[in-house]
Amino acid sequence: MSMVEEKFKKLGVENAPGQELLQKGVKLDLKGEKILGEKIDFSHGDVDAHKPLPNSLELFIEGFNKGGIQAYTEYKGNKEIREYIAGKLSEYIKMNIPADNLIITPGTQGALFLATGSLITRGTKVSIVEPDYFANRKLVEFFEGEIVPIELDYFNVNEKKAGLNLKQLEEAFKSGVELFLFSNPNNPTGVIYSDEEITEIARLVNKYNVTVIADELYSRQIFDNREFYHLITKNINQDKLITIIGPSKTESLSGFRLGIAYGSPTIIKRMEKLQAITTLRTAGYNQAVLKSWFSEPDGFMKDRIEKHQAIRDNLIEKFKTIDGIKIRKTEAGSYIFPTLPELEVNLGDFVKILRIYANVIVTPGTEFGKSFINSIRLNFSQDEKKAAEGVDRILEMIRRYKK
Amino acid sequence: MSMVEEKFKKLGVENAPGQELLQKGVKLDLKGEKILGEKIDFSHGDVDAHKPLPNSLELFIEGFNKGGIQAYTEYKGNKEIREYIAGKLSEYIKMNIPADNLIITPGTQGALFLATGSLITRGTKVSIVEPDYFANRKLVEFFEGEIVPIELDYFNVNEKKAGLNLKQLEEAFKSGVELFLFSNPNNPTGVIYSDEEITEIARLVNKYNVTVIADELYSRQIFDNREFYHLITKNINQDKLITIIGPSKTESLSGFRLGIAYGSPTIIKRMEKLQAITTLRTAGYNQAVLKSWFSEPDGFMKDRIEKHQAIRDNLIEKFKTIDGIKIRKTEAGSYIFPTLPELEVNLGDFVKILRIYANVIVTPGTEFGKSFINSIRLNFSQDEKKAAEGVDRILEMIRRYKK
Repeated sequence: MSMVEEKFKKLGVENAPGQELLQKGVKLDLKGEKILGEKIDFSHGDVDAHKPLPNSLELFIEGFNKGGIQAYTEYKGNKEIREYIAGKLSEYIKMNIPADNLIITPGTQGALFLATGSLITRGTKVSIVEPDYFANRKLVEFFEGEIVPIELDYFNVNEKKAGLNLKQLEEAFKSGVELFLFSNPNNPTGVIYSDEEITEIARLVNKYNVTVIADELYSRQIFDNREFYHLITKNINQDKLITIIGPSKTESLSGFRLGIAYGSPTIIKRMEKLQAITTLRTAGYNQAVLKSWFSEPDGFMKDRIEKHQAIRDNLIEKFKTIDGIKIRKTEAGSYIFPTLPELEVNLGDFVKILRIYANVIVTPGTEFGKSFINSIRLNFSQDEKKAAEGVDRILEMIRRYKK
Repeated sequence: MSMVEEKFKKLGVENAPGQELLQKGVKLDLKGEKILGEKIDFSHGDVDAHKPLPNSLELFIEGFNKGGIQAYTEYKGNKEIREYIAGKLSEYIKMNIPADNLIITPGTQGALFLATGSLITRGTKVSIVEPDYFANRKLVEFFEGEIVPIELDYFNVNEKKAGLNLKQLEEAFKSGVELFLFSNPNNPTGVIYSDEEITEIARLVNKYNVTVIADELYSRQIFDNREFYHLITKNINQDKLITIIGPSKTESLSGFRLGIAYGSPTIIKRMEKLQAITTLRTAGYNQAVLKSWFSEPDGFMKDRIEKHQAIRDNLIEKFKTIDGIKIRKTEAGSYIFPTLPELEVNLGDFVKILRIYANVIVTPGTEFGKSFINSIRLNFSQDEKKAAEGVDRILEMIRRYKK
């Protein structure tokens, strides 16, 4: 097998959210009858139930009508729009971000790709958290870095912490890790890192001269009035940090593919060079839509958070009705990540059973770390009623297959 | 310098089209007065002078209104849209292309990135043409391939050929080149490969088991009723060929960032995996715009070609008025690539002089190959009058600086 073939063998997409149709037909041992019900796809949010930011389409049309000047922006994005976003983000994190230290990318996936591609080459030691966003591992592998995993013990920790194993992190940094990549709020668990944890991460990366990519995609959708701590606001070497955020989730703008990375000017410059050969730029007209972000109508964010908090509470109550299901309450974002009791089929088959016989799509825990063979992830940014019915069907299947 | 730093040092963007603002201020030796005139940017087409396909915005709005189903497509693109495009391309090249062997990408740049990233790893020997699209070299370097350049002797050849040095190509293949990447029509010269050349390329890649990426971005805008030969229609191993095309240029849809790659199912699958970690997918709503492509109103393409042919003829006539300028007539696409007479300043400075003192932006020939130190590239998809005035200013500057 050639080197390229080997590399791509690792890069599976069949179990990635939204890719379920690629799963090959298999014979599954169905217990009982199919469970009928309206299809629900928990692999991503439902932008029909929670609509894109008002004004987003109008801004796109305005961008289109501007013509060439909006079609052909600088590779890192239209300057005026970067200035708008830099101003809004500065207010948001309460710290000044210059527009030149910011790049507009095709989604936060684009930002992650450009950031990792700017920092990882073969043999670069990279720490990623387990569990964490499924693409993190794939990105490190694609760029031929070496993964040094860090455990997030999100169950066995008091609720004020995320549960990052900071000792393990320091050991990893001591052993030569050059890059630490993590999401906060964590995807898939929905936990937030505590002030103490974030402060300690900052201290350790300074001490060991490590670079950090902090993926804060979900940081605007915080429940129960919790506090959120941005790593960039801590005492941290500002040239070693890239923060990522975007309007795809909380603001439902995923169909426009828009993301932002900001921080270290050294790294942003590399990301711009890399963007020049990946997609040239984020689609020009789409960039104009960013002006709807952080300018939501009064009450939009409050309403959004309340609605999601209510869905969360309802679904978590349901999961708790079955013995042996472990679940930690989501603190931010739209995910729940329950651990299921031991089942008579393996996780891969169970996920297919849910899809084929219960019309419910979930993402298997193994996408977020090899050891999560009993977990499933649900994006609960859904229609409330459909989500509740979907979870009822999941629970019924768990009852049938529970050992 | 670390390995990553070294890699990014090579990836310059300052001279890339549209990035001129990044050029540092320098003291230039201006001869005579500034030449006043309306700014013209020959580094890319003017989508205000040659408008996006009619109906493109309406299709976008329709896509947006479809909601979630259009926002979250399969990574390789919405199936129905892939089927539409596969059908249209099948008619276009007169050969059946299955929708599953096709991927929708963020621009043809995205397609090039995914294709090269799916085929090149460190040490892979890759042949690229000189001159050819400026990103080709950068892509090979980013993936740590080894470049084996092939000469395109576009001046010293009869007009029916592009001028590819086929002996050199065979030598390269013999020496272990695994991938051949070329644009046809050629960017920046606008020449078309002859039937004979394309047939010989097919024969050689079969003989030496080489994979090919054929960038046919400009293949719809053909002048003087010339014939165009698609490599895929030749006797060639179909699993070793990827063809790239898109609606950014002739159809002025660049602001939507849409491209297509089709061909080898093996490579398309890899490209899909890579897209999953670069941008997830091409922006969902944007994909809907592809339905305006190959469905132009009657006469649209004919009118488009006639207008561009007239601009081409006018500008080429102008360049021919100065002794020592060599220029080959563009056969397809929107570029002219004149070789200038020897000047008293180097090319980099001359390009800056044009920008600062004549309000004209052109792309230096060195972006397309190190040896093109006397060439400039102009995209003539411009307002006819502005383009003519811009070329007059270029000519005046050439007269001033000619040795």
